[in-house]
Amino acid sequence: MITSVTAFAPATVANVAVGFDILGFALESVGDKVTLEKNLKSKEVNILSIKGLEGLPLDPQKNTATIGLLKMIADLELPYGFNVKIEKGIPISSGMGGSAASSVAAITAANEFLEKPLNRTELLIYALEGEKAASGAIHADNVAPSLFGGLTLIRSLEPIDIIEIPTPSLFCVLVHPDIKVETKYSRSVLKPEISMNKFIQQSTHLASFISGCFKNDLDLIKRSCIDFIIEEQRAHLIPGFYEVKKAAMDNSALACSISGSGPSLFALAKNEKEAAQIKDEMIKSFQNNGILKLDSWVSPINKNGSYIIERIKK
Amino acid sequence: MITSVTAFAPATVANVAVGFDILGFALESVGDKVTLEKNLKSKEVNILSIKGLEGLPLDPQKNTATIGLLKMIADLELPYGFNVKIEKGIPISSGMGGSAASSVAAITAANEFLEKPLNRTELLIYALEGEKAASGAIHADNVAPSLFGGLTLIRSLEPIDIIEIPTPSLFCVLVHPDIKVETKYSRSVLKPEISMNKFIQQSTHLASFISGCFKNDLDLIKRSCIDFIIEEQRAHLIPGFYEVKKAAMDNSALACSISGSGPSLFALAKNEKEAAQIKDEMIKSFQNNGILKLDSWVSPINKNGSYIIERIKK
Repeated sequence: MITSVTAFAPATVANVAVGFDILGFALESVGDKVTLEKNLKSKEVNILSIKGLEGLPLDPQKNTATIGLLKMIADLELPYGFNVKIEKGIPISSGMGGSAASSVAAITAANEFLEKPLNRTELLIYALEGEKAASGAIHADNVAPSLFGGLTLIRSLEPIDIIEIPTPSLFCVLVHPDIKVETKYSRSVLKPEISMNKFIQQSTHLASFISGCFKNDLDLIKRSCIDFIIEEQRAHLIPGFYEVKKAAMDNSALACSISGSGPSLFALAKNEKEAAQIKDEMIKSFQNNGILKLDSWVSPINKNGSYIIERIKK
Repeated sequence: MITSVTAFAPATVANVAVGFDILGFALESVGDKVTLEKNLKSKEVNILSIKGLEGLPLDPQKNTATIGLLKMIADLELPYGFNVKIEKGIPISSGMGGSAASSVAAITAANEFLEKPLNRTELLIYALEGEKAASGAIHADNVAPSLFGGLTLIRSLEPIDIIEIPTPSLFCVLVHPDIKVETKYSRSVLKPEISMNKFIQQSTHLASFISGCFKNDLDLIKRSCIDFIIEEQRAHLIPGFYEVKKAAMDNSALACSISGSGPSLFALAKNEKEAAQIKDEMIKSFQNNGILKLDSWVSPINKNGSYIIERIKK
């Protein structure tokens, strides 16, 4: 009998400049870990520990890692509960899909306990429950890539329809300035309407970006991975945004924009060496803008999504 | 010396439901023919005849077929002019790219006379001149597919950046109800703004459609080739639009929407047999709505664009 499972779910970059609310990709090495210990004595879920971040709720009804888990236990009428240990590798409210990753890791781990494991689309439904609680609406642009890996396109949530887009072997730079930007606030600054001209301009860049991914055409990706709508409305939330972006683009980045709802910035690079330099220049530029507390990562785009790190049997 | 060249340029379906102003594809057998006879005595352009349609201007400064030609002669300082014969196979103001096809056919023919023929991107610039005069603004979503063939995505016009999208071997049904809808009027009914929600919904369907073309996934094309923005604003211009569309979709069409700015409707079908039935049902439905005068076609998607039919040398 499996008694304990630990799963890892990667951080994700949602929106990807051209696909507001519909595109996201996963990173390789940055993410959250969740350990579930089977509790035969009770159907309850108890959060035993949260490492790596302070201030997250220990109440399983309020923690994004466990909300989906509770629904899964209820829906599937599981005769047991879980003791949960969470290890956060993703900063809070960073725009890197932290709540999604915890939720995906928990659901990925829980699936190992099931007699009839669920498929990824079924898992997605539970993982979305946590995300719904975190951001106030259902958005799958972090959950889907964290679970599926690669670059994912969310065509529809009812019914679930996730399209996997092939991704060139690019490296992603993520720089997280330690300022808080809540997803809800970051959504609230957006205008409810956009002009037809901007719609057309953004549409053609989205379609070109998708084409660039399928054609493995890095130059086309560079020409098209540009946000004409959201970025300009959120840039003011991030000190020095345009300078940091310029630093990335001046150093051979294929693209640079806000990761999810920010404040993290992502950049795409052709190789690891260029990615490292882009990262350094972005950090310098943030520092020049008075942001001294920063986290940063360089990672390939993850092609496999969440996975099991450890199973303990008795 | 080449003395006369006849070129064919295909009719085109612009917008393709998901790509307003940015997507278009070409048909195989429907189109316009233009014959150019070299005139060594004068640098002028004279339209000798226009067959197939009445009421088109014989003034070369006003006919979309010759406007680009005039600019080409001037730009390249050609020491000769052309006598022009136009054979229209595309009804006027039908939403099938008639002005684009005449312009493309003329430029394609003219290119044969050049000592150093231009490449397709250079030809596009001249072909666009005629289109600009016809619709009041530069739109390449008819000209590009008529010239290039296949499904084309216009990423940018300045500079010209046309992305060729692979097309599954689909059949296209075109039904043209003989009512006049001017492009300019059809544009004027569109609201200048769209809601963020519709923008997101349309974006994800566009990206899914492009993915479906690259993956050759007909079911994904069917799920995604849907217009949430333009169609509902223009449907009232076409009597019985929703019934005709329903007739197509009820008969296994993968998609059905307005071709360009209308009033023609296009439908996509998996094979020629289904296409023929879809066409019949669409015609019946138009007839039930009092539209008795109709043209209709079934054609594979054209993969090669405009071409030379005849060269006469002396």
